[in-house]
Parts: sequence; structure tokens; C-alpha cells
Amino acid sequence: MARIPERVLDLTHTLTPEFPLYPVYDPVTVRDKFSVADDGFYVRSWTFDEHSGTHVDAPAHFGGDAAVDRIEVSDLVIEAVVVDVRDRVANDDDALVVPDDVLAWESAHGRLPERCALLALTGWGARAGDAAAYLNADAAGVMHAPGFSPELASFLADERPGVRAVGLDTASLDFGPSTDFAFHVGWLPTGRYGIENLTRLDDVPPRGAILVVGAPKLQAGSGGPSRILALL
Amino acid sequence: MARIPERVLDLTHTLTPEFPLYPVYDPVTVRDKFSVADDGFYVRSWTFDEHSGTHVDAPAHFGGDAAVDRIEVSDLVIEAVVVDVRDRVANDDDALVVPDDVLAWESAHGRLPERCALLALTGWGARAGDAAAYLNADAAGVMHAPGFSPELASFLADERPGVRAVGLDTASLDFGPSTDFAFHVGWLPTGRYGIENLTRLDDVPPRGAILVVGAPKLQAGSGGPSRILALL
Repeated sequence: MARIPERVLDLTHTLTPEFPLYPVYDPVTVRDKFSVADDGFYVRSWTFDEHSGTHVDAPAHFGGDAAVDRIEVSDLVIEAVVVDVRDRVANDDDALVVPDDVLAWESAHGRLPERCALLALTGWGARAGDAAAYLNADAAGVMHAPGFSPELASFLADERPGVRAVGLDTASLDFGPSTDFAFHVGWLPTGRYGIENLTRLDDVPPRGAILVVGAPKLQAGSGGPSRILALL
Repeated sequence: MARIPERVLDLTHTLTPEFPLYPVYDPVTVRDKFSVADDGFYVRSWTFDEHSGTHVDAPAHFGGDAAVDRIEVSDLVIEAVVVDVRDRVANDDDALVVPDDVLAWESAHGRLPERCALLALTGWGARAGDAAAYLNADAAGVMHAPGFSPELASFLADERPGVRAVGLDTASLDFGPSTDFAFHVGWLPTGRYGIENLTRLDDVPPRGAILVVGAPKLQAGSGGPSRILALL
């Protein structure tokens, strides 16, 4: 039987109309529908594109088979591995998480678990309260933020196939300047998924936590705002 | 450290525009926004009232303090207790889960855990594919479905205060004919929460499973469609 964790960490940003949004999406909207004062009970109504807030990118987002309602539940409850790349991001807004980062993690902590989710701690999440700083577009409109390198997609899928998901504390799996979304293209069609806009990754140990990905069961969804918890 | 469960059960219905909806709410709508064929990636946009699909009722739904984004995470990962009332429901569509059901459970399985979520297996979920049968309105428009008795709210809050949540496999915590929502009124303002439209409760053992409630972190939400998993 499973057992109650000693501690639960919430890796989820609160979803609001102000939360930074990748520029192709429309703003989240919410309105009050019923109120305790007028109706005896309180309810709001929401409209959002699936890639709002802390959310999952299902394989189907880039042509993979599984929509968000079809991700295997065994992939939603999985050991978390945290790769810390904050040092490099401090000197390079466009820093990439590369296969060598995984190998360095393995040198310190041993081979990746047989099945896991690989989470990159870039430190970028500290900017999430300021959409302009988080998306970090330059004068030409090119965004600058860290992300996963395209080479990492094939390295993990080929050499570490038990990595069922990746996630990070930025708005996109690909780095800011990407226009071809090469990591998304290389990763999601393999049947694996991604998580964007995570927070509090600095509180998750390098290995041993259990990630529970509360992906919404949206019929045929490409992803969706998710509740992400880490169990210690 | 937490450990990977041997088995994960998904207690969540897929959210679709056709899923049965408590009559005061507007239909869920979804539309395709980007497609792999036209745009290289696939995204849908959703609109829904917070009480759609398998969802949480936060305390704030009926005047309690905590909105859905403020439920303590320690209350979202909690032992599940399943009270089976299918025998009574077989003879009475409006059967109520009462304090005696909890006492009977305790006679068989021991005192309720110090902290837990109490889930009622009514069997009603078998109707969820047919909205008319699930809501089960009679010729006068009065709905008939099982639910929690108002007395259970005070019994649990007073006598078993470690029960942090209740849930069931129907569209409402209150039984079908209710017009005063007496269970909601008695339960949610105590700071505890509810879960409606659960499924597969017949696969959850009477005790020992860990419920993980992936409540969406909707700012100031009264609740919301949630991913609910049971870890065995």
C-alpha cells in the first residue's frame, strides 16, 4: 500500500488572468457567475487556452498520439529528478539544458531512475510575477529564456527512455528565441509529455521526490492547467 | 521519502461538453484553436463553470474561507476511506449516507484514520454516460439521486474532525431532491471540501489508499474540474 508522504510541495502557480502567457495564446478570462450574497453559493466561469498557467503539454500538442486525457496514469505519478542549471542561466538568459547536464547529474547522484520525470531548475520562475521579465522579449521582439536543447530530446528518448516527462520553471520547453520549437517537435511525438511554468523546484531534492501530475482530463486536449505536487 | 505506489487508479471522468451537469450551470464548451495541419501544433480553448465534470467544491463555494487555490495541500494528499452504500441505493434512489454508515464502517474496519477523505460508493456513477439517468428528474422536475445527509456533516465535523473531505459518485453532495443544499451548507463552511462526480470507487479498497486530489489552482475559485487519483 502507498503511504502518506511526510511533506507535500505545491509546484503550481496560481492561475490568474495576469499570469504570463506564451504570446500565441489568448488571455485567461474569469467572471463571477453566482455569489453567496445573491444566490446562496459562489461560482465562477473560466475561459482559457489549454496552455495557460502551470500546465501539461500532452504528446498530441505536437502530433503525438496521446491527448491529455490519455496519458498513462503510471506516467502521472513518477519519481522526480531535478537538474539544477541556475549557474549557467545566471550568465546566459538563453542557456540550454543539454545531455551533459544529465550526465553531470548522474555523476553526482547515480544513473537516472528506471522511470522518472526530469525537471530543470533554471531559476527563471523568480520572474513569473512580472510577465515582461518572464517572457523577456528584446527590442526586436525575440524572447530570451532558458530551455531544453533539441539534442536532449533525442538523448533522453534514445539513451534514457524511462524519462517519461520533462518540466521546467519557464514558459516553454524550448528556449526563448526558438521559432521551430525543436525540443517540442523532438520530444512530444515520442509519446512523452512536458510541464511548463513550474514553481518551487528549488525545494525539490535532486532525487527521491514523487511527482504527482494532476493533468486535467480534458477530452482530446493538447494539455491543460494542472495541479502539480511533489511528495517527500 | 515517499515511494512509488504499486498501482494508480484514476477516479476522474473525462470532461466533455456532454458530461452530465447540475442544472444551474451552463454547458462546457470547447473549440479547436490551432491544429498540427495548419499551425504545426494543436491547442483547444475551453469555457466552463467551476462545477463541471469530476470536480472539487471548495469551502468558499458555500461561504467558507478557503477558495480552491487555498485548500491546504496536506488536505489534497490524504488517506481515502470508502463507505459502500450500494445495497441501500438499490432500493432507494434518494438514499442518504448517514452517521450509522460511518459507524458500521468502523465496526468492520476500525476507527476512521486520524486524517482522511470519506468517499461514498453509491453505484450511481454507472449512470454517468446518460445525463438523463444520472440526474434522474421525475415528471415534476424533481431529481432523485443519493447523497450525504445533513446530519452527517455535523457528525463528521464534530465527532470525526479529521475527515477533511468527502466525495461521491453522483452530481451533488446533497441528495437529488434537495433544494436547501443542507449538506453543502453544513459542511463547506467548516473549512472542509467536497468532491462530486467521482468514478471507479468500486476499485478503491475500504481503507489504505492515498487519495491525491489534483484541484486546479484557480485564483479565488469556488472549486474546479480536478484530476483525482488513488494510490495503492
